[in-house]
Amino acid sequence: MTTVNAYAAASPGARLEPFTYELGPLGDHDVDIAVESCGICHSDLSMLNNEWGMTQYPFVPGHEIIGTVKAAGAHVSNLKPGDRVGVGWHAGYCMTCPCCMSGDHNLCGNATGVIVGHHGGFADTVRAQAASAIKLPTNLNPKTAGPLLCGGITVFNPFVQFDVSPTASVAVIGIGGLGHMALKFAKAWGCEVTAFTSSDSKKQEAMEFGAHDTINSRDPAALEKNAFRFDMIISTVNVPLDWNAYVGTLKPKGRLHVVGAVLEPLGVVAFPLIAGQKAISGSPVGSPATIATMLDFAARHGIEPKTEHFAMQNVNDAMDHLREGKARYRIVLDRK
Amino acid sequence: MTTVNAYAAASPGARLEPFTYELGPLGDHDVDIAVESCGICHSDLSMLNNEWGMTQYPFVPGHEIIGTVKAAGAHVSNLKPGDRVGVGWHAGYCMTCPCCMSGDHNLCGNATGVIVGHHGGFADTVRAQAASAIKLPTNLNPKTAGPLLCGGITVFNPFVQFDVSPTASVAVIGIGGLGHMALKFAKAWGCEVTAFTSSDSKKQEAMEFGAHDTINSRDPAALEKNAFRFDMIISTVNVPLDWNAYVGTLKPKGRLHVVGAVLEPLGVVAFPLIAGQKAISGSPVGSPATIATMLDFAARHGIEPKTEHFAMQNVNDAMDHLREGKARYRIVLDRK
Repeated sequence: MTTVNAYAAASPGARLEPFTYELGPLGDHDVDIAVESCGICHSDLSMLNNEWGMTQYPFVPGHEIIGTVKAAGAHVSNLKPGDRVGVGWHAGYCMTCPCCMSGDHNLCGNATGVIVGHHGGFADTVRAQAASAIKLPTNLNPKTAGPLLCGGITVFNPFVQFDVSPTASVAVIGIGGLGHMALKFAKAWGCEVTAFTSSDSKKQEAMEFGAHDTINSRDPAALEKNAFRFDMIISTVNVPLDWNAYVGTLKPKGRLHVVGAVLEPLGVVAFPLIAGQKAISGSPVGSPATIATMLDFAARHGIEPKTEHFAMQNVNDAMDHLREGKARYRIVLDRK
Repeated sequence: MTTVNAYAAASPGARLEPFTYELGPLGDHDVDIAVESCGICHSDLSMLNNEWGMTQYPFVPGHEIIGTVKAAGAHVSNLKPGDRVGVGWHAGYCMTCPCCMSGDHNLCGNATGVIVGHHGGFADTVRAQAASAIKLPTNLNPKTAGPLLCGGITVFNPFVQFDVSPTASVAVIGIGGLGHMALKFAKAWGCEVTAFTSSDSKKQEAMEFGAHDTINSRDPAALEKNAFRFDMIISTVNVPLDWNAYVGTLKPKGRLHVVGAVLEPLGVVAFPLIAGQKAISGSPVGSPATIATMLDFAARHGIEPKTEHFAMQNVNDAMDHLREGKARYRIVLDRK
């Protein structure tokens, strides 16, 4: 038996308190990971508040985990104790459904979420199926790598899924935890990169992250002036926008791709989609294979999330920092 | 000078009356076409009623034209007098914008619509840029080919644009002028084909057009029972539906593709798009190259629209038949 020392919320919106639980015997395909650090994603907060109606309490957040394998199940072949790995949104997949068998494990209908009916990475130990733990390249900085595992892969995945060309003009809506990584990936991918931001203070930083240009997303005239400009727009925000105005900034065959979980329906008008052969689409995190590809790409291009660090025991301060919208741009909890 | 004998509406919703107009000198890149027949598309009615606010009167409808080249401009190299051709939604393209230069003439922002500020095919003669007149394969039945030029290409084009696999499961919403051709194309393309229809009377016919299965689109339980079934749904209707219910019937990575010009915004919820990496998209008619490809494909597979024929002088009877929703499935006006 392994005792895990974690931080859990007892009820929706509650403060995180020290929480201890026992792990049963290690499954044949599982690994136990000694957590070194864990990023904080906005979805940790949404889940803590039970905004999506699927949270189980006590709730241990954390799904941007970097750590070291300390035990590997009997049938684990891809990892061994001592390997440094990352774990993101998923702690396991069914491995045999058509999605899994096609390499789209991230779309598996029976996947296990790290923080959905499973205890997450605000802890000293996390258990996960070995297939969901991705070995870190040795030339990637482990101290800042955590946020790549959920926020990073969420904005990297569309480039892979839609085979985006380096000649494409790509824009990012929302320059925050996800958006700032999207700018870095788009720049390294070779694209023309534009940041939509409503915050003057973020303009300069957006350029430093890789944007060639910024557009004030609160200025309808600015959107109109950029009609037919972008091949792909990645929206990372979870608030309703004038989506039709953004569709207007897409080139023919362009795509407005939503990765931010906005709850209000997208009131998109069909006519401009038809006339310009445009699309509105969405995607979640990536598959283990795509995560591995991203980590290699990030290491090769020196891409790191811009992180702020808190000791894990100060997790409530860190959550307050996130709640108050102060994160610049991704918070990481460190265990040592 | 060439005198054209046409049928025109003098004002929104008016009856079509004989109308004569003069064509100026033939442009170097244009052809004059002696009309043999012309299909009637629902958009002819929408334009006649000025539903889209862009109709110019007197208005000559008709953009599913089959005819024979009777005169070719000095620089026309792809056609010669006597060639049998088809003309669809477009009567010309700018030929030099990025869309035209990439083979996407159908997305050209400066294209000329046959019935938009231009007189259409309810006439003995139509003038069009030679690039927009597609030579008919000799093994295609010209008497029924007209409806392929707009309705047909509109539902064929998505198969080409999205490189649909013959292993895909494809559904069609709305079994009418466009939908019945979509079923035929999907069947010949090798796909598993399902028809969504609210009309019991059309079920048997849908199967004859190529559907392997039909689903009652008015039965929410039937939609739920078919969750995660389709790779692509093509919607040909112009009325608002419960789009989110249809998104639910898409497989992961599936696409709800809209070709019917529904005016009400599509109130699509982002979450299922994100979780399943799904898309909502649209497209208009196809490029000249895709039209040529479609005509060859139709000829090879013996695909013909199911047509009802009226003599062109009885055009008002034909329009009434369409207005009353009685067309089964596409009306063609014959000049001889």
